Amino acid sequence: MARVYASSVIPAPASAVWSRIRDFNALPRWTPFVAESRIEQNLPSDKVGCIRNFSLKDGGRIRERLLALSDYDMSCTYAILESPMGVENYVATLRLIPITDGNTTFAEWTAEFEAEPAREDELVRTIGQGVFQAAFNSLKARFGR
Amino acid sequence: MARVYASSVIPAPASAVWSRIRDFNALPRWTPFVAESRIEQNLPSDKVGCIRNFSLKDGGRIRERLLALSDYDMSCTYAILESPMGVENYVATLRLIPITDGNTTFAEWTAEFEAEPAREDELVRTIGQGVFQAAFNSLKARFGR
Amino acid sequence: MARVYASSVIPAPASAVWSRIRDFNALPRWTPFVAESRIEQNLPSDKVGCIRNFSLKDGGRIRERLLALSDYDMSCTYAILESPMGVENYVATLRLIPITDGNTTFAEWTAEFEAEPAREDELVRTIGQGVFQAAFNSLKARFGR
Amino acid sequence: MARVYASSVIPAPASAVWSRIRDFNALPRWTPFVAESRIEQNLPSDKVGCIRNFSLKDGGRIRERLLALSDYDMSCTYAILESPMGVENYVATLRLIPITDGNTTFAEWTAEFEAEPAREDELVRTIGQGVFQAAFNSLKARFGR
Repeated sequence: MARVYASSVIPAPASAVWSRIRDFNALPRWTPFVAESRIEQNLPSDKVGCIRNFSLKDGGRIRERLLALSDYDMSCTYAILESPMGVENYVATLRLIPITDGNTTFAEWTAEFEAEPAREDELVRTIGQGVFQAAFNSLKARFGR
Repeated sequence: MARVYASSVIPAPASAVWSRIRDFNALPRWTPFVAESRIEQNLPSDKVGCIRNFSLKDGGRIRERLLALSDYDMSCTYAILESPMGVENYVATLRLIPITDGNTTFAEWTAEFEAEPAREDELVRTIGQGVFQAAFNSLKARFGR
Repeated sequence: MARVYASSVIPAPASAVWSRIRDFNALPRWTPFVAESRIEQNLPSDKVGCIRNFSLKDGGRIRERLLALSDYDMSCTYAILESPMGVENYVATLRLIPITDGNTTFAEWTAEFEAEPAREDELVRTIGQGVFQAAFNSLKARFGR
Repeated sequence: MARVYASSVIPAPASAVWSRIRDFNALPRWTPFVAESRIEQNLPSDKVGCIRNFSLKDGGRIRERLLALSDYDMSCTYAILESPMGVENYVATLRLIPITDGNTTFAEWTAEFEAEPAREDELVRTIGQGVFQAAFNSLKARFGR
């Protein structure tokens, strides 16, 4: 099992950041790499168990199931069902914590998955930098830094 | 702020117990004190943010909002919006953990709330015994012990 | 029960910040308000259960017991045994999390305690600003911002 | 990375179970497979960072470092430094939670490690059954069930 960890500081209050990212169908609005997204079966995007089905700007398609959503902890956990990445048992959690000193937000994204041993390191780098950090950078830009 | 803690062992696998209690609208089916329940606005009962509106067998009515639901951790967190109990800022979490030795389930229920200081101890007792433990006892009976 | 929460970003890697604050006897070296400190009975300061006995620059004396120490999570939990603050059941936790984006540190300090209701708000403010945030400010200055 | 999980119910109050297992040097007193143990450099066994050096009844020798100890959460985390098992990056946590219904204890033991892929499944089984569950069985017997 491989593990990815990325964390950042978003220059906005946690409630504002959470409003932006809480919607499980909103990846096109806050990440730079998602072209369009829909929730399968027209379910509400905050119904635990729903599936988002989205296409990447580079053409790939990913399906992910919402496993947990918390307005209390400002966190969400999801699993990859299908993707072009060749990962198994992929589960990720995105979580926000308020930074009281300056009223900004600590954002943390973790993932665990299995893959062919020879590909693990490259996948950890791609997911950590190309997905999680890229999304953080996009959030930071949107909130003005 | 007062705190309630109750925990028990349910004689069934965690997945079976979770199937029984995951539905935020299912209190009449597994607790002894709820007469009927509905989710306001006909929302799905696993949509985070939905409100359950239920009546107690003794006649009281309670409205609670689902703050978090996790199929990953088998947990749910909710807040009381209205109740006859006279509590403020009431937030509770119910969580299951598998017991591998025997394939049963550790169940844990915590709550925090504020109330008039003179009533706190009595409320902690009532909630801990009359609500949480009573519900655990009911679960234990349903699963055969 | 009252609750205090303060969090900040320290401009140094988490391992460097942890090296500075891990020593339960080191408050005089990284906080602005502690004059001197010793561990009672000459115990090692990372022996769980040890007691630090320190004097404040304003003259007060405080005794605190180390309840938990984790080099794995970079966290420590302690309880106040004696202080001039008039608090009961005071337990606090200080925790660091790495911020990978920039190689800095998220620091979080929480406390729970009981006090006379009329004094709670003032104590929450004093502890949050005068103790936790003051210590964070001192750390930030030491690490160069 | 492989993962081990074992959990059980010990028929005694959590404080009594914690008294038995808190001492990082006490494996010979509550597990069936450890012959003798010492803390290197004569350090106290609750000093975070100390190393226990113990021999198994089957002749192997293991060195483990205490990474975290919490009297607050009744948990301890440690890493294997040397062992005959052929594992890398092995970190384990043992944790107790009170079961209020009956005044007994939920005990949970988790581990993560890396090993040659071909040996992982066997190691997970050996550690989960031969070490963690065997120790739980011994604890259960000592506390009378």
